[in-house]
Amino acid sequence: MAILVGDFAFVYADRMMRGAPAPALDVFDELRVELCVGQSLDLVATAQASADPLAARRIATYKSGKYTVERPLHLGAALAGRLDDLAGPLSDVGLPLGEAFQLRDDVLGVFGDEDVTGKPVGDDLREGKLTPLVALATARTRGDADDAELLGRLGSPDLDPIEVRALQELFVRSGALAEVERTIERLVAEGRAAIARAPLTADARDRLEDLAVYVAWRDR
Amino acid sequence: MAILVGDFAFVYADRMMRGAPAPALDVFDELRVELCVGQSLDLVATAQASADPLAARRIATYKSGKYTVERPLHLGAALAGRLDDLAGPLSDVGLPLGEAFQLRDDVLGVFGDEDVTGKPVGDDLREGKLTPLVALATARTRGDADDAELLGRLGSPDLDPIEVRALQELFVRSGALAEVERTIERLVAEGRAAIARAPLTADARDRLEDLAVYVAWRDR
Repeated sequence: MAILVGDFAFVYADRMMRGAPAPALDVFDELRVELCVGQSLDLVATAQASADPLAARRIATYKSGKYTVERPLHLGAALAGRLDDLAGPLSDVGLPLGEAFQLRDDVLGVFGDEDVTGKPVGDDLREGKLTPLVALATARTRGDADDAELLGRLGSPDLDPIEVRALQELFVRSGALAEVERTIERLVAEGRAAIARAPLTADARDRLEDLAVYVAWRDR
Repeated sequence: MAILVGDFAFVYADRMMRGAPAPALDVFDELRVELCVGQSLDLVATAQASADPLAARRIATYKSGKYTVERPLHLGAALAGRLDDLAGPLSDVGLPLGEAFQLRDDVLGVFGDEDVTGKPVGDDLREGKLTPLVALATARTRGDADDAELLGRLGSPDLDPIEVRALQELFVRSGALAEVERTIERLVAEGRAAIARAPLTADARDRLEDLAVYVAWRDR
């Protein structure tokens, strides 16, 4: 039934887009294809219990980065008839911010307050999702048998709260969490520099600045 | 992954329809909504282990009748710019033929040759699908404890070949199969009468006649 509800939403989204200019429809199609690609990569990496940092980054880009930030910005530009001159500058803004958004999502999935995120903490760990956080922790603890055993529990549906806590500690102790936070800072700085360079009005820049803060920290 | 492949197909179907005239897009949207509705009704009836003949007929109409025959005929008419004058006559053709198509599908699902249909015989019975065949058999054997027990096994994933055989015999013995076959004959006759009345060329009529035979009997 959930699949059918998704199909309904799909049809109604199409109907709402009907009549949009052709460049906007092109962006919308591309967004939907990229999302499917990202979700497929995500499933395959999870099934393979991969810890490849490049794969983790590619998944984050397709599954969330492009879909959540870059393509919606393109969609707005296309609806305003300015895709030709703004596609490049908005990609420079959207790609780093989209990646920061996904990294924050990964961190909240492991360390977040369930009351705030609405998602049970540890679910990403139980599903064995390949995230940059996991890939970094794996690389940084290579050679330690205890850590390897603990990381080997990723993807176990019966992961208990004590193991979730131990994994959280491992992400902190290994420096993986700090590295992800530094990456978020760097990506937001990149996005902000691109906002400053973009040929936009002051008002549009202000809104993108708000977006930059929101995607990276949500609650600030 | 199967869901994602479906989503991909959805997006590419949309893209192929892009540029079709607005009336064709309206038909396409309606077709997709009706299909979702039919599948939802199907799931609900299966979950409720319903044997309601009216529900069975409504499911057959939405899930398959409109989607398989009526709406595709409308789509063709819309692409040819003739939806206004042909929608009614083509519904008169498509609705009975679509219902006949679904009834044949139900019969093949229970009695068909796996090598021909490509579907394992008995799967519909194991899934406990509410079909007119099942609704009729239930109504016709009311009061018989043995038959009720056998029909109570519908929807059991572990239904074995002996039980499938016993259910096939029950559908024959109760007269349910014969009634479905008579209904198919009646629906095809209705569809053919509508073809004869429709304001179409002789060539178009011939093609619809072929369709009428195909949907009702497949292999003739």
